[in-house]
Amino acid sequence: MTLAGRPPAAALVFRTLLVHGPLTRAELGRRTGLSPGAVTKVAAPLLADGWIAELGRPEGERGSGRPATPMAVRPERARFVGVKVTGDELIGVLTDLTAAPLAARRAPLASRDVDSAVRAVARLVARLRADGGAAAQAGAESPGGVHGIGVTLAGDIDARAGTVQYSPFLDWRQVPLARLVEGAAGVPAVVENDVRALTVAEQWFGAGAGLSSFALVTVGAGIGCGIAVEGRVVSGAYGVAGEAGHLPVGGDRVCTCGNTGCVEAVAATHAITEQARQATGDPELTMAAAVRRAHAGDPAVREVFARAGRALGLAMASIANLVGPQRIVISGEGVASYDLFADAVRAAFRAQAFGAAADCDLVVRPLPFEAWARGGAAVAAQRIFAP
Amino acid sequence: MTLAGRPPAAALVFRTLLVHGPLTRAELGRRTGLSPGAVTKVAAPLLADGWIAELGRPEGERGSGRPATPMAVRPERARFVGVKVTGDELIGVLTDLTAAPLAARRAPLASRDVDSAVRAVARLVARLRADGGAAAQAGAESPGGVHGIGVTLAGDIDARAGTVQYSPFLDWRQVPLARLVEGAAGVPAVVENDVRALTVAEQWFGAGAGLSSFALVTVGAGIGCGIAVEGRVVSGAYGVAGEAGHLPVGGDRVCTCGNTGCVEAVAATHAITEQARQATGDPELTMAAAVRRAHAGDPAVREVFARAGRALGLAMASIANLVGPQRIVISGEGVASYDLFADAVRAAFRAQAFGAAADCDLVVRPLPFEAWARGGAAVAAQRIFAP
Repeated sequence: MTLAGRPPAAALVFRTLLVHGPLTRAELGRRTGLSPGAVTKVAAPLLADGWIAELGRPEGERGSGRPATPMAVRPERARFVGVKVTGDELIGVLTDLTAAPLAARRAPLASRDVDSAVRAVARLVARLRADGGAAAQAGAESPGGVHGIGVTLAGDIDARAGTVQYSPFLDWRQVPLARLVEGAAGVPAVVENDVRALTVAEQWFGAGAGLSSFALVTVGAGIGCGIAVEGRVVSGAYGVAGEAGHLPVGGDRVCTCGNTGCVEAVAATHAITEQARQATGDPELTMAAAVRRAHAGDPAVREVFARAGRALGLAMASIANLVGPQRIVISGEGVASYDLFADAVRAAFRAQAFGAAADCDLVVRPLPFEAWARGGAAVAAQRIFAP
Repeated sequence: MTLAGRPPAAALVFRTLLVHGPLTRAELGRRTGLSPGAVTKVAAPLLADGWIAELGRPEGERGSGRPATPMAVRPERARFVGVKVTGDELIGVLTDLTAAPLAARRAPLASRDVDSAVRAVARLVARLRADGGAAAQAGAESPGGVHGIGVTLAGDIDARAGTVQYSPFLDWRQVPLARLVEGAAGVPAVVENDVRALTVAEQWFGAGAGLSSFALVTVGAGIGCGIAVEGRVVSGAYGVAGEAGHLPVGGDRVCTCGNTGCVEAVAATHAITEQARQATGDPELTMAAAVRRAHAGDPAVREVFARAGRALGLAMASIANLVGPQRIVISGEGVASYDLFADAVRAAFRAQAFGAAADCDLVVRPLPFEAWARGGAAVAAQRIFAP
């Protein structure tokens, strides 16, 4: 059972408790605009079904349902599995309703063939379920206590249809992945773009929790970005949004998209490596070696990283000027060498952000692939409380 | 009386009828997710107060409240005045609830002194009220049938506080304009940035009506922009959003904001005039003369307009890549000579928009200042149905 089929006020009360709880009925009424009577009416079936609970009442008080008794979400009420698919590996986590990890596992992706990848996902889900305890928890209706699976991967994903439209690194096109995983694992499944799913997780349960608007920029093999406005991750009328990697920052480097002057053409890992090879004259230079040379003080290589930082800072300023998020979180494998970018990012951001947009908080947050997998669990959980 | 104090479902039903009506109770239920019983319960007081009406029933049917009887908003139920303030003029419109103009007037702004400007606004409101007929319409509770006034102007506006934080062209700082106008005119007043107000009007009742997301870019003395996502105009956590004029597009021209490489430094009217003067060697060249020379085929001046068009196209592609609106409307006084920009705008947009973001519809829409004034009325009306 989910919150679907209940009145919209039920989801509103549940979401409010999730983000701001514990709250008394009176506080819930103030935050939701519902009358005290409406809060009590809406909360009753959520209490009865164990989605929320009343917290211990102050000593000396008796009875239940008093307006001053705080209520809170019961994280143990439902479990989810999130799986991030990379080109050669599956990273999975079992979480509770608030996407807090209960267990984590990795498995190699032996083949990029769709059927064997789906079977590998189902096996990983089964193992995570076993990790979580063989007994289904009280109140959970799905086998093994898992309510939903969220699979995330880079590429063009139609989340509504549950379809991978195009995954460049798996070379998948038009794969109905949600339906296939659901069939193999026997649990409802959803599919989402990995950066957008990570944004959902951060928005609900991470660095974006409680903020009205928030953006996440990931730096690595590509430049990814998710933007949350008024509690929702923007998805774009044509399925494209948060493409910070293809903002124009000038210069004559050709991007993988075919255009010239994109952020990714300067700041993605392959772009940095290429520029460092040109700067050093060493055609074999790796990214790791470029990082070492920059740390050792090689001015030409340091300038390559600074140029990447300027492009990223301009991209973040563009996000701030257009959408005005309260905070921008910078993550992705690239932040391991963020010290080489940081000054240039901040200087370019400060110069280009307009007026008070420069007050936007820039936060660097290294997030391992398990945190990305948690994004899948957050998206699956979201189907329950924000249908 | 407004919809304030009613349950959130009342505003939801009202907004749904406003955008998608007329609708039957059954259709309203499907669109809002409310049960048929809830729709009937919520609609009853709105019907009783005259905010909505049941349309004529098919012949042969009798009785009211039948699920198949369509309901619609009654535009005549409330009137609003919108006023746009420029450096030397006030432009006002009297509208109905759907921001449809009933009367329009202009008045010179003799002085930029706050008190005399407020008095001039109050006089304009009184004349528009008289234009609308001396008798208060049935059901309207404010004097003269006007429910609210929306004043709009360029600059940094704190709409929530009703304050003009900074208006460069009036040289106003920290002016509590909503309170002052309310005192002088005796009608509730709101203040909003003019571009954001125009975006609200277009989003609810214009080229953005019914679209999930939508952006408006205005080209003229400055480059303005409003972005609507999921039916709301984005306002930014720090009050800055839609600053498309300060997106980075490269080049070495210094912007009025002090930074280098902003869209406005290339594509605002003063920037085009300056570049045309440099290109022609004529230090006295006016914008009108530059337009004439470009129309006559002067290649150097045509290139100035093309460069402005490229900057605007890149800015629109940045909006499309980050937010993914269904449509971008281009307006402002600059569109009078849009033929000189158009090809460059579209070429730069197509090159920089990523994947399906390029499907975004670019629409040129000349909007006179009366349409901008209507934005103020739309913002005032919005306080009723989207509090």
